[in-house]
Formats: sequence, C-alpha cells, structure tokens
Amino acid sequence: MGQVILVTGGARSGKSRHAEARVRALPGQPVYIATARADDDEMRARIAHHIDRRGSGWITVEEPFDLIGALDRSDGQGPRLVDCLTLWLSNLMFDDRAWEPEAEALVAALARQASPVILVSNEVGMGIVPANALARAFRDAQGWLNQRVAEAADEVEFVVSGLPLKVK
Amino acid sequence: MGQVILVTGGARSGKSRHAEARVRALPGQPVYIATARADDDEMRARIAHHIDRRGSGWITVEEPFDLIGALDRSDGQGPRLVDCLTLWLSNLMFDDRAWEPEAEALVAALARQASPVILVSNEVGMGIVPANALARAFRDAQGWLNQRVAEAADEVEFVVSGLPLKVK
Amino acid sequence: MGQVILVTGGARSGKSRHAEARVRALPGQPVYIATARADDDEMRARIAHHIDRRGSGWITVEEPFDLIGALDRSDGQGPRLVDCLTLWLSNLMFDDRAWEPEAEALVAALARQASPVILVSNEVGMGIVPANALARAFRDAQGWLNQRVAEAADEVEFVVSGLPLKVK
Repeated sequence: MGQVILVTGGARSGKSRHAEARVRALPGQPVYIATARADDDEMRARIAHHIDRRGSGWITVEEPFDLIGALDRSDGQGPRLVDCLTLWLSNLMFDDRAWEPEAEALVAALARQASPVILVSNEVGMGIVPANALARAFRDAQGWLNQRVAEAADEVEFVVSGLPLKVK
Repeated sequence: MGQVILVTGGARSGKSRHAEARVRALPGQPVYIATARADDDEMRARIAHHIDRRGSGWITVEEPFDLIGALDRSDGQGPRLVDCLTLWLSNLMFDDRAWEPEAEALVAALARQASPVILVSNEVGMGIVPANALARAFRDAQGWLNQRVAEAADEVEFVVSGLPLKVK
Repeated sequence: MGQVILVTGGARSGKSRHAEARVRALPGQPVYIATARADDDEMRARIAHHIDRRGSGWITVEEPFDLIGALDRSDGQGPRLVDCLTLWLSNLMFDDRAWEPEAEALVAALARQASPVILVSNEVGMGIVPANALARAFRDAQGWLNQRVAEAADEVEFVVSGLPLKVK
C-alpha cells in the first residue's frame, strides 16, 4: 500500500506549503489534485497563488467532487497531493450530496492506492460554537472526517505557524 | 491522591472517545459524569450517540451544575470521566451562577479525590475574536478554567484528529 | 544575533504568562513592549490585569504602531517581551496602514537585535471560516505573519492550557 500522510492545521498555517515540500521529497512526478471550485474572486486569487508557488513540474487535476476517481485514475503516476479535504467536504455538503458514504469510500480508496497520497485538511473546531446550524454541522463533519483519515494514515502532522508537529 | 488527567481538543476532535479509552484502561467500574443538559434535539442526539458508543458497564451520573458533589459522591467507586468541562462552565454562566468560585472549588476537589478523574474540555480560543461580548466572556472563562485544571492535573493531552499530543 | 522566541496559542491559553516567565529567566532588566491600545473598558481591564501580574521590575513601553522603532530603541537594555503581534497587526490593519511591508521590516529588525526578543502571537485560524470579509483578511494576515516570524525565530512554542509544546 502507498504511503498516506495527513497534514492538518488552521487557515494560513502553512500546511499546504509544508505538504508540497513533503510531496516534492518523494520520487516521481507530483500530481496536484485541487478540490477548489473557482466560484468567486477570492477563491480564484487563492488558487492562482497556490499554482504560482508550486511552480512547474506538477500535473494538475481539478476535481471538486470525484476525489476517489481522481485518486484511482492517477495511481501509479507519482505522489499525489490532495488540497484539500475541507473544500471537498464543503463542496459535497453545499451541493446536498451524501458526504458520509463518500468519506467512507475515500478511506477505502486510500487503502488501495499504490502511489503515495498526501492529504491537506483544516482544523475548524477550536473556536467558539458557531451560531449557525449549518456551520455547526460542517464543523462536526470536518472533525469526523479528519479522525477517519487520520486513522487510515501512516503519518499525521499538525502544522502551527508553518512548522509541523508530529501527531502520528 | 488519585490521578487527574485533562483531555482537551477542538469540537469533534475525538477527545471524548480518547478519554473513554483512557478511563477503560484503568481498574474498576467506570463512572460517566455527564454535564450536558438535554435541552434541545441536537444535544439529545449527541448524548444518545455518546451513550451508545460507551456501551454497557458504565455507571452514568447526570449532573449539569454540582460537578464537585458528583465527584465527591462517586469517589472510591472507580475511575470517573467528566464529559465535559465546557458544558459545565456554560451551564454555570448561562444560569448566571458565579463560575469562578466553582472553578476554584473544582481544583480543590480534584486534589482530594482518591479515585482517578479524567476530564474532557474544549479549546475554544483559536478562532477569530467573536463579535458577541458573551461569547468573548465565555472564551476567556474557558481558557482560564483549562489553565487552572491543567495546572492541577498529572497529565494533559491535546487531541488532534483523534490522536493525543502529550502536553504534560 | 539575540535570541528570538515566538510564543503562540489561543486566546486565554496562558501564552503571555508563559512568555513572561521565559523573559524573566533571561539576564537583564526585562522590557515590556505593549502593542495594545486602551480604547475601551474591556481592553483597559485586560491591560491592568497584565500589568498587575507582571509586578515591578519591568520597563514598560507602549507602542501600538512603531514596534520596529521600539525594538531598535530598547536593544541593549535587556530582554524584550512583545505582547502581542496580534494587536499590532490589528492596529495596522484597522488604521489602513500597509501591514505587509511592516511585517517584512519586523523580520529584518529581528535579525539585527543584540538582546533577546520574545514575541507573543495568537492562533486565529482554527475556527469556522468567518462570514465577514475583514475577519477573513485578518485571519490570513495573522497566519502569514506567524509563519514569517516563526521562520525567523530560534524557538517556537505553542501554548495549550498554559503548557508549552515545542514546535521549533
């Protein structure tokens, strides 16, 4: 089974940059699996900034929903960076898709990958309880997804101020 | 003095599940001290989910306010799991009770327990400053309470994605 | 070059108290560089509480904007405690000043200090995405500033429930 690494942390904690460095250190041409949807200017600017930072030499796959298909199709090509689980989950939830079976299917898919997978995710549960019910539901789903992926991962890193703390 | 362990982390970080495993590893019949009030459907569903996960073999005590009495009365029965300090604090604050003397009394009570106590609490101060004054007051109180209990504890664990980081 | 230490953590996590202890352990009379503006009662109460806790023996400098000048002017006097980067950044942003060149100038200034500098900062990116665009911009800026200062620092500590986790 290919190595599975979860890199988690807060917004702008440097987790994507750290995850990119981990992927680059692995042999083979890296594949970037972007789950973002370029729906608004803020998100487009953020995506452009990430593409810019990575530089050339990456294969880029944009896949806001079918992450499992993207993993299966790119297996054997090189190490994959999934950036990020938070946007994927949010796409599923805001599109009213059943995210729980998708999450279980992701865990199963990770187990069958031959090439390494580095997954970036967010910590969203360390603020005050959100007043909004949908935000609370998202927070619960994200926490649960992180636990499931962490369980399936060989390594888990929690990034603080750009620096990784080894959790597993 | 009985062992005191604080397990802290974000919402849905897996802290309760980890704390339950710690309690189960200790000798004696475990006592679950639930501080939740089943005021609404969301909370009732969450409590049902926790009871379901723990399974049989636990003594359950529901005590939203008198946590200190619940600890003193159950001392000697077996290891206690307090789930959680955040709901207890929130019950005290929203019921307009003086939470600071209660928190000091809790620290004093922990020092006199003969059986182990594992306390679950939340990290709520790592988001943006809340706009709401009550939310800011709660955040401050929770941070302060966590510091006081951590000081009194023999062990402190910070749970990220279901995995504990040893802090003390 | 003088030692540079970044102490980060959530609101009321005990990071200021921990940072004060680190400064006190260094030789020389400690200098407290306060970036807070005493604009409202809540902030005035918080400042009074901090002054009270530190006790005498500290030189206090209040500098909401010109942090770099305050560092350069106090260099050679003793170890400096900057409390905190979050208020400094917030002062710059809410006063519509260009915070990015200031942040780069801070990193450059840290490299030329002869006396130690301990900087306190906040983790603000581990809650739900804020609905407010200004809050999102602040969260991004704070995360980015923490990364830059952490890169420049000799040591980085993440404080949870009053207890430091070594990150660097």
